[in-house]
Amino acid sequence: MNLSSKLLENAVEAFATLPGIGKKSALRLALHLLQAEPATVQQFNEAIAKMKQNIQFCTVCHNLSDDTICSICNSPKRDQSTICVVESIKEVMAIENTQQYHGVYHVLGGVISPIEGVGPNDLNISDLVQRVQTGQVKELIMAISPTIEGETTIFYISKQLQEEEQVRISTIARGVSFGGELEYADELTLGRSILSRVQYKK
Amino acid sequence: MNLSSKLLENAVEAFATLPGIGKKSALRLALHLLQAEPATVQQFNEAIAKMKQNIQFCTVCHNLSDDTICSICNSPKRDQSTICVVESIKEVMAIENTQQYHGVYHVLGGVISPIEGVGPNDLNISDLVQRVQTGQVKELIMAISPTIEGETTIFYISKQLQEEEQVRISTIARGVSFGGELEYADELTLGRSILSRVQYKK
Repeated sequence: MNLSSKLLENAVEAFATLPGIGKKSALRLALHLLQAEPATVQQFNEAIAKMKQNIQFCTVCHNLSDDTICSICNSPKRDQSTICVVESIKEVMAIENTQQYHGVYHVLGGVISPIEGVGPNDLNISDLVQRVQTGQVKELIMAISPTIEGETTIFYISKQLQEEEQVRISTIARGVSFGGELEYADELTLGRSILSRVQYKK
Repeated sequence: MNLSSKLLENAVEAFATLPGIGKKSALRLALHLLQAEPATVQQFNEAIAKMKQNIQFCTVCHNLSDDTICSICNSPKRDQSTICVVESIKEVMAIENTQQYHGVYHVLGGVISPIEGVGPNDLNISDLVQRVQTGQVKELIMAISPTIEGETTIFYISKQLQEEEQVRISTIARGVSFGGELEYADELTLGRSILSRVQYKK
């Protein structure tokens, strides 16, 4: 693209580094900001800079937080005896949006993956074990991807907690999605949802 | 969306003000920057801030420019006797991308629209007239939308230049697009492309 302005070109390239933004969208975004009020653009930049500089990770659950301890861990309405273990903050957001879960979280920061060089010590596993050992945790819900890496991670964590008999470990239910047509479900999901069938309440 | 962090929420809202970016995309973009290197994020912000602060409009043609006079007006390779008159900088970019045009431009900054309260004095028309009167301009190519407002603008400019007999005024060719199927062309375009048919060279 020939933009006749190096300054505009730099801004377009900056936008184009973002995921899902191509050159054409980047140009549209840059032109939008170019035509916007200076105060609006300053606000835009400040929102990003402040997020980057001031956001912290909760020292208890490693979720995003504006303070040392996040609003979920700090809430008296949350059931501190149930911990949902997730890979990243994205899963926290997804589960929070369901409004079905009232316990707390623990963000691992990934899954064990020897191929990518991620070992147990690179993840927030040791302090999850500590949380279980020192607290009154009754249940860990593993909301982790059903991949080989995910299964390995669940297995590793369960081994670490073998001594802690008061803690129940569960995984989220997997199967054909609600509203999903059987013929469009993938074979693995369909096969497993038959194996882990649920008693029908008459 | 419940994001548990006001700082992240502000950044998401900032992205969501951009055209074509919804809440979900905004969240993806904000999380991307949150996980990026601090230097990358600083570069991103600086590219936008510098564009906003330092970009100018060419004093000759009103195109975007890093200097007082833009690189197109300044280029010795450009034919200064042909001026392509366009509504906005977006059309300059579109025409430059064709690599078919070697003259210079004049950006009006809009079209005459009584309904939206845009009169001739709100546009860069008077200095277009001046450019024609003082320079060696031989042709004005009107690359303006074929709307009522666009036609009005072309008519107004041609009236202003009635005395300047040395200047030819043309409009870009309109018709069924190359590669376009006749049956899918809209009626107005198809009708007009029959009226303004072109002699076939045997």
